[in-house]
Amino acid sequence: MEQLLQKILAGDRRAVARAITLVENRSPERYQLLAGLRPSASKAHVIGITGSPGAGKSSLVDQLTLEYRRQGLTVGIIAVDPSSPFTGGALLGDRIRMQQHATDPGVFIRSMGTRGNVGGLAPATREAVKVLAASGKDLVLVETVGVGQSELEIMKLADTTVVVLTPGAGDSIQTIKAGIMEIADIFAVNKADLPGARRLAREVEVMLQTNCPGTPWCPPVIQTVTINRHGVKELAETIKKHFAYLVESGKLNDKRRQRAGDEVTEIIITLLKEWFNRDALVDSFVSELMNKLEKDSIDPYYAATTILKRIFDGGFKGDMNPFQE
Amino acid sequence: MEQLLQKILAGDRRAVARAITLVENRSPERYQLLAGLRPSASKAHVIGITGSPGAGKSSLVDQLTLEYRRQGLTVGIIAVDPSSPFTGGALLGDRIRMQQHATDPGVFIRSMGTRGNVGGLAPATREAVKVLAASGKDLVLVETVGVGQSELEIMKLADTTVVVLTPGAGDSIQTIKAGIMEIADIFAVNKADLPGARRLAREVEVMLQTNCPGTPWCPPVIQTVTINRHGVKELAETIKKHFAYLVESGKLNDKRRQRAGDEVTEIIITLLKEWFNRDALVDSFVSELMNKLEKDSIDPYYAATTILKRIFDGGFKGDMNPFQE
Repeated sequence: MEQLLQKILAGDRRAVARAITLVENRSPERYQLLAGLRPSASKAHVIGITGSPGAGKSSLVDQLTLEYRRQGLTVGIIAVDPSSPFTGGALLGDRIRMQQHATDPGVFIRSMGTRGNVGGLAPATREAVKVLAASGKDLVLVETVGVGQSELEIMKLADTTVVVLTPGAGDSIQTIKAGIMEIADIFAVNKADLPGARRLAREVEVMLQTNCPGTPWCPPVIQTVTINRHGVKELAETIKKHFAYLVESGKLNDKRRQRAGDEVTEIIITLLKEWFNRDALVDSFVSELMNKLEKDSIDPYYAATTILKRIFDGGFKGDMNPFQE
Repeated sequence: MEQLLQKILAGDRRAVARAITLVENRSPERYQLLAGLRPSASKAHVIGITGSPGAGKSSLVDQLTLEYRRQGLTVGIIAVDPSSPFTGGALLGDRIRMQQHATDPGVFIRSMGTRGNVGGLAPATREAVKVLAASGKDLVLVETVGVGQSELEIMKLADTTVVVLTPGAGDSIQTIKAGIMEIADIFAVNKADLPGARRLAREVEVMLQTNCPGTPWCPPVIQTVTINRHGVKELAETIKKHFAYLVESGKLNDKRRQRAGDEVTEIIITLLKEWFNRDALVDSFVSELMNKLEKDSIDPYYAATTILKRIFDGGFKGDMNPFQE
């Protein structure tokens, strides 16, 4: 593990790939690895790119990567496959386009999917971002299709979130819900050569004029056309400007502090769930409660609070404490 | 609350609507209410209907409802809006069609969405099902679009899950992932008048021939056409047969026992999260850990296990036990 850690910190591609597989498989070994990587993972700027299927996110990520490479910056890319049980991996089928970066040692690309690992995608993505950041990438781009709330959750890991809209995808202010507006730091109106693009950009700007007064950062609206790279440089610069704003205002630290807290809660919950399903159900106190629950003589809320009360009262301490060394 | 409870048990529509709003808003009052409803909620047969957008789930639910009403059974319907931040509520726009049941006192229809309540949709839906069941509905149909893993999660609350496939939605065995196959108790090949329907049904049957040997229930494949009601009666009967199988084999009790356990874990987690964000962060022991975490001198895993160890050791007992009466 120590060797893997050192290799990641040195930017070794195979070590990075192996580490991401570890986090993707939710291997318990990952905790030790992530602890070692953590001090080196704070320098990267993490950028989330989200939008409807077909908004051209992959092409935009592609063009942004070329632009950043031109500036001498290294880039890690995580394409999150929302893994709809019906639509399959088709949403990110154009991932193949990204192969132009395959021979560039300054770019690392990885697709991540749920693989049936319900609920584990957001933490796995966050941890993969950490691996890429610790490996020395200046920027980590996380691309995800905003098809559901769970995919939106993933965007919480980004320092800067770019919401990609396009007139082609039928996006309009009316159909875009509040949630997406709240997470956007920058709007990219992509396929800006299509009819309706200017109107869409204008609609977003009008909405922002209502929401922005009194806020320290008003999301800029950038029109982009990936085929001729129109607006891509401007978008790259705007992303940088947002990062500078986060650093200067202290918001970057706030965001990361909040995220560290969320991570602790999440690990507590994961470990507690494991304990419950493994040890608690065979404990006589808990199993008696579960029997009563089955007979409807108590309800789940009563069962839950009774178990929590016992945990906090030290009913599982000493040898029964699963977190004792 | 006692009055609301009595009204629900008597089947009062306004009381049912109010109770569902309570669970949808995750109001703490709901715990008491659900505890009271629980003993009366076990009789209903809960049927999940899932499939791609455009598979014709709403029409099928509509036709099934008419069929069950003809048999004198009462029906509760929950249409789960997966609330994509981009596509909005359009997926269930045809909900309007269901208004033909609006004047039928034997049918209760409710749409449920996330309303930004990330993660809360599955438990809220499960609780709404309980309200409808306790109100005396013989059948509760839960319709959801299978766009993501989180929506698939919702299907765990069903006794019987019907997966709706259609040649029109581009469904094929290759694109349907393992997850969906595992949850299907019955397949409905809808829009069976379209070209490709027979081939799709055949593909599913071939796949089942490989998977079924040795299993006590092999999912039947029913072809349906909602316009002329072809196959709807057969589907309704197959759903009943599956319920009879669940009862006779003891699987219904197994499923419901498992679900009660999941519910307890979930409530424990919700309450613990609330405690953590409200009380723990101001506790000196926890806040010191969080400070160390910020300075990268410890990692989140260490912080989490240290807090858990302290909880289990009784470090928060007596007056500090948040679950003490």
